[in-house]
Amino acid sequence: MPRMSRQLANIKTSAIRRTSAWLALAKDKKEIISFGGGAPSLPPPPEFVQKMKDALNDPWRAVSYGGTRGSLDLREAIVRDLQKYGKVELEGPDNIIITHGGTEGIFAGLKALLDPGDEVIIFDPTYLGYPEVLKIMGAKAVTLPVYVENGFQPDMEVLKKKVSKHTKALVLLSPDNPTGRVIRPEIAKAIVDLACDHDFWIVCDDAYKHTVFEGTHTWVSTLPGAEERTITICSFSKEASIPGLRLGYSYGPIEAIDGMEKYAQYLSLCPETLAQIAMVGYLDDQNAKDRYLSEQVIPTYKERADSMGNYIQDYLPEARITRPQGAFYYFANFESYLDEVRLSEEEFADELRLKKNVIVISGIVFGQNGKNHERMTFVSEPDKRIEEGIKRISDYINEKLGKRN
Amino acid sequence: MPRMSRQLANIKTSAIRRTSAWLALAKDKKEIISFGGGAPSLPPPPEFVQKMKDALNDPWRAVSYGGTRGSLDLREAIVRDLQKYGKVELEGPDNIIITHGGTEGIFAGLKALLDPGDEVIIFDPTYLGYPEVLKIMGAKAVTLPVYVENGFQPDMEVLKKKVSKHTKALVLLSPDNPTGRVIRPEIAKAIVDLACDHDFWIVCDDAYKHTVFEGTHTWVSTLPGAEERTITICSFSKEASIPGLRLGYSYGPIEAIDGMEKYAQYLSLCPETLAQIAMVGYLDDQNAKDRYLSEQVIPTYKERADSMGNYIQDYLPEARITRPQGAFYYFANFESYLDEVRLSEEEFADELRLKKNVIVISGIVFGQNGKNHERMTFVSEPDKRIEEGIKRISDYINEKLGKRN
Repeated sequence: MPRMSRQLANIKTSAIRRTSAWLALAKDKKEIISFGGGAPSLPPPPEFVQKMKDALNDPWRAVSYGGTRGSLDLREAIVRDLQKYGKVELEGPDNIIITHGGTEGIFAGLKALLDPGDEVIIFDPTYLGYPEVLKIMGAKAVTLPVYVENGFQPDMEVLKKKVSKHTKALVLLSPDNPTGRVIRPEIAKAIVDLACDHDFWIVCDDAYKHTVFEGTHTWVSTLPGAEERTITICSFSKEASIPGLRLGYSYGPIEAIDGMEKYAQYLSLCPETLAQIAMVGYLDDQNAKDRYLSEQVIPTYKERADSMGNYIQDYLPEARITRPQGAFYYFANFESYLDEVRLSEEEFADELRLKKNVIVISGIVFGQNGKNHERMTFVSEPDKRIEEGIKRISDYINEKLGKRN
Repeated sequence: MPRMSRQLANIKTSAIRRTSAWLALAKDKKEIISFGGGAPSLPPPPEFVQKMKDALNDPWRAVSYGGTRGSLDLREAIVRDLQKYGKVELEGPDNIIITHGGTEGIFAGLKALLDPGDEVIIFDPTYLGYPEVLKIMGAKAVTLPVYVENGFQPDMEVLKKKVSKHTKALVLLSPDNPTGRVIRPEIAKAIVDLACDHDFWIVCDDAYKHTVFEGTHTWVSTLPGAEERTITICSFSKEASIPGLRLGYSYGPIEAIDGMEKYAQYLSLCPETLAQIAMVGYLDDQNAKDRYLSEQVIPTYKERADSMGNYIQDYLPEARITRPQGAFYYFANFESYLDEVRLSEEEFADELRLKKNVIVISGIVFGQNGKNHERMTFVSEPDKRIEEGIKRISDYINEKLGKRN
């Protein structure tokens, strides 16, 4: 076999994807309690599913090629949606590109901005896709540590010192994966001011913008000075519980979206037609989305966030957590326990999987500052199984220490 | 607005995609005769559509995340499919990755192989995605001219001179877009021998493998020495007429597919679940695919290929063509007419669109050797409209020359 790309050795396989693959092959799935994935656990809105079925009654249209930028109908529906929920005033549908989930938005968005050697400020910990995509593009990740003690909010004084003349962009996730942080409005504003002063881009990852339980989502592109320097990455995966349909979108200045479209044509040619048709119908269906978010998504996930938080306090009192204000995750600092059982966060995650059938994601995969942490998804299991999972973690620690409750 | 990537200025927007966008906005679509796109004109197999509908009865499963490599069920069904149609003997489903159409296969496949500076031999003309993807990756395209006089078959003596110590791969499309060439078996064999001698990869683009009207498809990876150095890019877009569902796959050595999977997780995370479920059902449905290909695809497209060829001979006798043996296209040399009307192939295509409502794609977008050519899709229009379109082209030339028929 001839040699392959030298770059391959440096690109990591996502631990989350690896865990999904392991889960898919697992025999007794019921025994496994998964706090691992980032998948919604609610079924998709019935109105959306009905629109999918309806669209298949005109199969030729439903499976035909569309434009690389996505259907005009869907982009117009999104213009209205952003206006309604975020008071985002776009010039028009050309400010939007439809993508294969948020993932393609991240790749095409960063590709449109970056040249090799450019610096991009990312938080540490952060979503594990960012460091890998930056490596693929030959850009340099400059990491800004955030801590559980501050609710994973960034320290602006530290951030300012990370800016250099090579800074091309800053990536901001809110609500955040893996920490559940919702950025404080005054910090968002300070970040925008910094970007204006030093003329860099903000890549705003809004995949979780509709799953906020406390506080409110800051629509960064609407802040003064932000519009012309912000690409916002969005996804329907979480807000409509359709991750397997790979439907997302990004919005920003037309020139940036033009650039993303250039790359998208060679990444995937165009977004999927059927899902786009159905999404137009869903978004145009008066109140279907409001109803789904306010009656299903928010109450279900908020309740589970509270449950997991309470069980962690009860069963694992030495774990340091901050209550997530949005997204799907606790990013728990287990330092005290890990010291006692003499395991790294990775070994601990492996042990929980192998000995207790509990899946958590080792914090280190989200950055060096994720050391001693585990990411635990709270949306995937109902209350009783959340308790059972947390209890098993506690049991593991106690058994390891030779204690018996 | 901060500066964007410097690379953007060098990346071309696909003329075909631009034409699609223009077509989508056109008012009186019936007046327009399109020989432009590469879309199948048949509806998808009814069995496949039914499987899509069935899958939506279990919506949670249909829209959930799957593995980055694609579902095991579908990869196993493809193992059987390749065995049945091509006597391709894969070790197993790990030799396959499911992709968002052939497009993602091309991107991830080349990315897994190439480092900046590597040389890749491509034919000229060739599918316009390849030169752009090579530019994106910083690899060097080494072009091998092919000519209508030789039925667009490559000259092996010329090819040998293109190989250098930097040659990392050769891209072979058969049946070819844009020329309709089906590679001759002895040439395919000679290419594999050359790849073995100089230890380079073959990227075999088999998007049109099931639309062969004359001769037979050569399954390159089954030739002696080829398996360990061939990545084969496939798509369901043409063979099942579902281009808008973005479903394709690639197969090759496990190490190469592992490499593709690494990149795919950051390009799109995973393939679309619903379409995968339906495709398993379709492939497993005894004879549904056989029936669709033999009763619909081959006879319809062959008849249209014959029609267009005959009308070109009748109305445009000075155009030099070779009858396509597969795929969807005539790649016609209009040199004699273009000299007379004093237009470039690009200006001619623009004129036909604006003055005659006929869409053809300027040959130059497929490479320098596409100068004086136009690509004309024969599958998109029925017989009468093919005649009308060719007649309009002839009328345009005659009117331009002041002749009246």
